[in-house]
Amino acid sequence: MGIRFGLIGAGRMGRVFANTLAYSVAEADLVAVADPEAATLDEVSARYGVPTRYTDYHELLAQKDIEAVVVASPTGTHAEVITAAAQAGKQIFSEKPLSQDLKACDLALAAVKKAGVKLQMGFMRRYDAPYAAAKQKILEGVIGQPVMFKATSRDPKRTSLEFARREHSGGMIMDMGVHDFDLARWLMSSEVTRVFSEGACLAFPELKDVGDIDNAVINLRFATDAIGNIDMSRNAVYGYDIRTEVLGTDGSLWIGYLQQTPTLVLTRGGVIHDTVPYFMERFGAAYAEEVRVFTRHIVNGTDPEVTGEDARAATAIGIAATLSLDEERPVLVSEVEE
Amino acid sequence: MGIRFGLIGAGRMGRVFANTLAYSVAEADLVAVADPEAATLDEVSARYGVPTRYTDYHELLAQKDIEAVVVASPTGTHAEVITAAAQAGKQIFSEKPLSQDLKACDLALAAVKKAGVKLQMGFMRRYDAPYAAAKQKILEGVIGQPVMFKATSRDPKRTSLEFARREHSGGMIMDMGVHDFDLARWLMSSEVTRVFSEGACLAFPELKDVGDIDNAVINLRFATDAIGNIDMSRNAVYGYDIRTEVLGTDGSLWIGYLQQTPTLVLTRGGVIHDTVPYFMERFGAAYAEEVRVFTRHIVNGTDPEVTGEDARAATAIGIAATLSLDEERPVLVSEVEE
Amino acid sequence: MGIRFGLIGAGRMGRVFANTLAYSVAEADLVAVADPEAATLDEVSARYGVPTRYTDYHELLAQKDIEAVVVASPTGTHAEVITAAAQAGKQIFSEKPLSQDLKACDLALAAVKKAGVKLQMGFMRRYDAPYAAAKQKILEGVIGQPVMFKATSRDPKRTSLEFARREHSGGMIMDMGVHDFDLARWLMSSEVTRVFSEGACLAFPELKDVGDIDNAVINLRFATDAIGNIDMSRNAVYGYDIRTEVLGTDGSLWIGYLQQTPTLVLTRGGVIHDTVPYFMERFGAAYAEEVRVFTRHIVNGTDPEVTGEDARAATAIGIAATLSLDEERPVLVSEVEE
Amino acid sequence: MGIRFGLIGAGRMGRVFANTLAYSVAEADLVAVADPEAATLDEVSARYGVPTRYTDYHELLAQKDIEAVVVASPTGTHAEVITAAAQAGKQIFSEKPLSQDLKACDLALAAVKKAGVKLQMGFMRRYDAPYAAAKQKILEGVIGQPVMFKATSRDPKRTSLEFARREHSGGMIMDMGVHDFDLARWLMSSEVTRVFSEGACLAFPELKDVGDIDNAVINLRFATDAIGNIDMSRNAVYGYDIRTEVLGTDGSLWIGYLQQTPTLVLTRGGVIHDTVPYFMERFGAAYAEEVRVFTRHIVNGTDPEVTGEDARAATAIGIAATLSLDEERPVLVSEVEE
Repeated sequence: MGIRFGLIGAGRMGRVFANTLAYSVAEADLVAVADPEAATLDEVSARYGVPTRYTDYHELLAQKDIEAVVVASPTGTHAEVITAAAQAGKQIFSEKPLSQDLKACDLALAAVKKAGVKLQMGFMRRYDAPYAAAKQKILEGVIGQPVMFKATSRDPKRTSLEFARREHSGGMIMDMGVHDFDLARWLMSSEVTRVFSEGACLAFPELKDVGDIDNAVINLRFATDAIGNIDMSRNAVYGYDIRTEVLGTDGSLWIGYLQQTPTLVLTRGGVIHDTVPYFMERFGAAYAEEVRVFTRHIVNGTDPEVTGEDARAATAIGIAATLSLDEERPVLVSEVEE
Repeated sequence: MGIRFGLIGAGRMGRVFANTLAYSVAEADLVAVADPEAATLDEVSARYGVPTRYTDYHELLAQKDIEAVVVASPTGTHAEVITAAAQAGKQIFSEKPLSQDLKACDLALAAVKKAGVKLQMGFMRRYDAPYAAAKQKILEGVIGQPVMFKATSRDPKRTSLEFARREHSGGMIMDMGVHDFDLARWLMSSEVTRVFSEGACLAFPELKDVGDIDNAVINLRFATDAIGNIDMSRNAVYGYDIRTEVLGTDGSLWIGYLQQTPTLVLTRGGVIHDTVPYFMERFGAAYAEEVRVFTRHIVNGTDPEVTGEDARAATAIGIAATLSLDEERPVLVSEVEE
Repeated sequence: MGIRFGLIGAGRMGRVFANTLAYSVAEADLVAVADPEAATLDEVSARYGVPTRYTDYHELLAQKDIEAVVVASPTGTHAEVITAAAQAGKQIFSEKPLSQDLKACDLALAAVKKAGVKLQMGFMRRYDAPYAAAKQKILEGVIGQPVMFKATSRDPKRTSLEFARREHSGGMIMDMGVHDFDLARWLMSSEVTRVFSEGACLAFPELKDVGDIDNAVINLRFATDAIGNIDMSRNAVYGYDIRTEVLGTDGSLWIGYLQQTPTLVLTRGGVIHDTVPYFMERFGAAYAEEVRVFTRHIVNGTDPEVTGEDARAATAIGIAATLSLDEERPVLVSEVEE
Repeated sequence: MGIRFGLIGAGRMGRVFANTLAYSVAEADLVAVADPEAATLDEVSARYGVPTRYTDYHELLAQKDIEAVVVASPTGTHAEVITAAAQAGKQIFSEKPLSQDLKACDLALAAVKKAGVKLQMGFMRRYDAPYAAAKQKILEGVIGQPVMFKATSRDPKRTSLEFARREHSGGMIMDMGVHDFDLARWLMSSEVTRVFSEGACLAFPELKDVGDIDNAVINLRFATDAIGNIDMSRNAVYGYDIRTEVLGTDGSLWIGYLQQTPTLVLTRGGVIHDTVPYFMERFGAAYAEEVRVFTRHIVNGTDPEVTGEDARAATAIGIAATLSLDEERPVLVSEVEE
């Protein structure tokens, strides 16, 4: 008998978690799913053999024999669902972000604290084997003292115009940057204290109409005085391009790759290879691993490594970097914390 | 309700197939497992939730509601188990090789033919995405007419001395080469007609005592007059190294890689990356895919692409290449076919 | 009979140019060398067979049969030497930078203009085959419209403390960045309009005492609204690391490499390769090519592509980026132009 | 005053050596050139400033103040020219091969020995930095005991039909293989004792008419019992492809690369890079280095590392490998030595 899980939200990411809970985590049982769409419920419960289904997630939370929930509802509802789940005494794994609003973050974190339940946030990159190995090497001192963080985060196509609106996605810097803001804090073992963003709408003019941009470079300053830069783009037509570097006083670590399959085609035109199509091809295994780790935390009574506080900190950096874009000036993260 | 599978043999590879049948093939149900070891049976049936277990595989074959079997018993028993499974009317997926003896191959193939059941052989490399893509590109004419086949197949450590004996593994050329012999025929769309082997025991003198070698290079000639070479080694201490090339009149295709994780470590000593540790890290997904494809063949009533005849042909090349090593002369594959 | 050249300054870079003029440019004759150090003069004139030598460069400029000069004197003297050379009617090739002071740039450029002589600046990267090919591909539209410029410029060791002082090198951003500022303008076909620098002294505390830093990230904004980032470091202990990228709406171009020699060493520790040791190993051929191109401009009566105005523009960006570091705010390049 | 060199043969390779002697070897003076073509003589002597020219190389050999010669005459004349140069007391650097006939080799070597002059053969790959570094690493024991030699030698286009004839080039195996036969002996520190060739005419049917092939794989056996394989092709349309590997008991060394310039183009079609066009782009520096080393041997009175005996041994392997192709059987190199 494994840990009994309920899944809240069965959209694209919800199905990824359903598949993981059903097939890839030996100690987990997926016993219920909640989603407002009846058709979605039918499909997901049939496909993954989930016995109980709800259109209202509160009913799922009321089911006594459910010990833990995975929150994969729309981004804007995370804080609210986490709060309710905490009040219902469930152990909580939630997709990122916690919220794009710091007050909402604080309310949810207070509820989690009061209930004394676990909350693990879905920054899956930390569970990607290459990133985990890099973190380990940094801790072992392989590169000396970290002095520079570099990240590239690029999508092969633009998001929907609806999602691009600030009120939905938080804008490109918040939406695409949150994973990098988390990696920056984690790999550098230091808080980001100042950000400065340059960004523009250069490839998809229609994004301008909904108030978004498609390219940005963000300078970072850390509490240790280390520095960094993140570049983002929605027009990496060649593929999904996620690369990260930590430069230290004694060396450097690069994490990431472009080539998806180990096939080279050599013709008169040169040597050609493919790229990574999109995020699931790159991070599919990490999405499974993070749930596996969370389940083990419940089994073992240990605390998650990626906390709600981490999610809140990434949100704060995103707010500051977006403010910097709007006001064309460097912004202290402490400014937006207040 | 999926296709009801029985698993025969629950050793290292048997467990891989148990895991695949239990978790990775939606249309398959693993309902029984047979293995002479009671402890193995207990462990595997508990771990993968297999309801029925047998110490004698004949009993599994007698279970009427089992439609298909996966044969993962010791190499030397494949032909016998396949024959019995065919006589019991089961659809058969079998780990390679069919047999190291051509007469035994023929008996098993005759039984399969008489019973009218499907037989798919476990040459999993054909189901590895890069190899499948390469085959497709060759068929599309991307490299013109194939003229040369090159393959490297190297293990990071030697096999056990017991297994190295000719009567068990067939010797290094047969044991390590069978996948390459199959790839050669498949990627070049032509039969191998002549082989010449140079081999020696150079790294592990203890292998000499049991009659085996640890390094070999094998020249190939194809029916089309195309040529080829396969190199094998048991002392690739740097990692599991499987690379294949098909050179054509208009280009070349390379399949394979050395780097397992996309992490570069840059220090005063240079740039360093890891390698592929062993075969499951390289071909894990292909082991699952081949069983998925086999299951779909049953569901759809279609014929497997990798047949018993393919397995027999690979065995014939292995026998000829081993004879060439022993007699220090080029050997026609037709010599050993008679 | 080739173009008769005089060399002004025979230090480290001067010798590189002496070697080029003596051996690698068929249409050039190196007929005189000027350097304040008598020992240097002796050595260089003996080694490269230069008939005439001067300790005072004014005397070289007074030699009537010299048509062209290569200026490789200390950085701080470039503007003054160029001015004198222009007044003497010589064709001028000068190592970068023109000057770290915009007024000095303007005086030198006025002298060049008045004399009607050619002035080509030593931004050798433009003559490196990979950069030249990248520029060509951008012009051909291979990547669509350029939207982002990324550059990494890292040295394997720190400069001397004496040179690090602002009054000598201009500080790290000016010293290391000038080539990237030139590449940015050239590859993006647009002027840099705004810069924001984050920098710190993190690896070599002794640099702080002389007022310099050892790591920086600089955000760029272009007149086209394109954006960019340059990172610099003095502690790339793994090697000389120069990489540049231009991301466009239809693709991306990467220029640069880490591996100097095509040798892989594969052992139990993984796969290891070397890196580029330092700038001459990376750009040696480009240093020769730029002088070859300059000589052909004289022979053909054509105009240099890399002008004094280009050098002035790179200096202006460097001044603005240094001011941004000092004042911790984004700086418009137009601010420092006035 | 440097070593006074005469150049015999001013065709394509002769000009490469003229350029090297004129510009790249400080201790060498190119004082005379011999070639039967008057126009060639005019052009080469003008371009490289060579004061004396001869249509008959015997006259060059008679010039008393010439201390050393570089032999770059047609392949079939090497042995004869070397013999005459030895009799004239000149120090000799000769392009490979010595001769395709072992008796002719022996006569030339006897003349060299009798005259007591130096003879260095133009196996330039030994002077290529990556190969030199690999040899050094093998000697240092980095890969343990060498057990396998692998080589790929491919041209992007076929040779002329006239040159392809056995009487001119010695056939593809002799012509393309001689550098690999030399590398095999040198890197493995062992003699090749047995060869077996598979070859065919597969891409260029017109080569069949002149008795040549366009693809071959050659198995090698060494005196140490180590083994090897060389593959050759004339239809590597993607570029000039020279790669070599030495696998040892403790690791492996790979030498070679495909990418000529460090530029990646990333578009919707994938990632593409160029290849090495042809041999001068790959080995240009090595052609200069070998002459520099030879000149230093004269200056220092030391003995060349690449001897006439080395050249003879490479020829013997080539003869044996060609005989193996013709007779379709393994051939002992000792068979052809007699």
